[in-house]
Amino acid sequence: RRGEMAKSTQLIDNEVFRAYATYTAIVLLKMMLMSLITAYYRITRKAFVNPEDAASFGKGENAKKFLRTDPDVERARRGHLNDLENIVPFVGIGLLYALSGPELSTALLHFRIFTGARIFHTFAYLLPLPQPGRGLPWAVGYSVTLSMAYKVLKTAWLL
Amino acid sequence: RRGEMAKSTQLIDNEVFRAYATYTAIVLLKMMLMSLITAYYRITRKAFVNPEDAASFGKGENAKKFLRTDPDVERARRGHLNDLENIVPFVGIGLLYALSGPELSTALLHFRIFTGARIFHTFAYLLPLPQPGRGLPWAVGYSVTLSMAYKVLKTAWLL
Amino acid sequence: RRGEMAKSTQLIDNEVFRAYATYTAIVLLKMMLMSLITAYYRITRKAFVNPEDAASFGKGENAKKFLRTDPDVERARRGHLNDLENIVPFVGIGLLYALSGPELSTALLHFRIFTGARIFHTFAYLLPLPQPGRGLPWAVGYSVTLSMAYKVLKTAWLL
Repeated sequence: RRGEMAKSTQLIDNEVFRAYATYTAIVLLKMMLMSLITAYYRITRKAFVNPEDAASFGKGENAKKFLRTDPDVERARRGHLNDLENIVPFVGIGLLYALSGPELSTALLHFRIFTGARIFHTFAYLLPLPQPGRGLPWAVGYSVTLSMAYKVLKTAWLL
Repeated sequence: RRGEMAKSTQLIDNEVFRAYATYTAIVLLKMMLMSLITAYYRITRKAFVNPEDAASFGKGENAKKFLRTDPDVERARRGHLNDLENIVPFVGIGLLYALSGPELSTALLHFRIFTGARIFHTFAYLLPLPQPGRGLPWAVGYSVTLSMAYKVLKTAWLL
Repeated sequence: RRGEMAKSTQLIDNEVFRAYATYTAIVLLKMMLMSLITAYYRITRKAFVNPEDAASFGKGENAKKFLRTDPDVERARRGHLNDLENIVPFVGIGLLYALSGPELSTALLHFRIFTGARIFHTFAYLLPLPQPGRGLPWAVGYSVTLSMAYKVLKTAWLL
């Protein structure tokens, strides 16, 4: 049927792809939020790395004392880098996974667990929770990406 | 019409997707340029982090003195990391946005503003410009990605 | 022919796209491996950055002495960041390249050289090999991405 074909030519009409788009947008927005959290800590803790940023908060010698590291700023930055290290593989492998023809329910399970795990990971990092409060959600998200990579390689394998 | 369908099956023939491909390639090439800028500063300032790199510029104790940080190197590295933090969401959300059926003119507006903002951001970081010379282009790029994410979630929403 | 059209509507049935999916999954899995290597060095060298991580290896003052940097940990982290800087452009530009209609043999050549170069780069970084043992595979991977970007811009150009 023409409708069927037209449907399959529009990626965004495919339900698995729509789910991928939704969770990828959410998880990338969550990653972007780390920039605001870092900026918030930099401003409230008055801890900057660029002299031109510190200059907004004082002049001359007074500005120099704001060129320092702060534990909360560094923690937010580590959370941000950890997001990059884990969300980039999810976005890349997840796209290929969404195109490899998984069941919608299986795909949703992967996307939901990953997204939940990464949101929990951020709270665990920022609070911080004692271990394995942060290690566990990290491992869960990592495993979801591995599971999607397995499906991609099984479906697409062409070396 | 067959032509119409054939067109829609080839992503690269879709004008919005072509615009996405063009600006994504440009902005990723700009990010890759940061590696060369960092390498340039490392070599001209003789400031390395790996002993095997410093060894090319001196032997023994002489090489050790090149294992140091340099303000220009660190500045280029921060610009590179800021690119990763902002260009990765643009590439991921931008792809979904391009597939969500926006008007070509609206899509071009998003892609052009983001690309211009990030190129300006790099100049502002490296010169450096006084604030808000760097903060403003950062916020503009960030807002463009938020706007695309809104369109993606409105079109694709399937939780 | 219907078969032909159906084929082109399913990205994952396209041979160039299958090759892209295979190599992208491999190279992202390789990048994810860096997390495990960093964790391995942190645990065996007892060198942590988060107090809540060090707390698993000692109490009070005893835990504090594990809050330190270690050369092997830092080396693995630098390798991980270098992967992000280089594999992100490959994944993004590679997707557009795969959709720009290259010959399968040409595409495979690009994907294989990039993947081989990045695996070699990781060994060169971790061992470490003397230069240009690490610089050369870095430049090879970088050049492959530039070559793909050229093809993308030539095919898709719409500014």
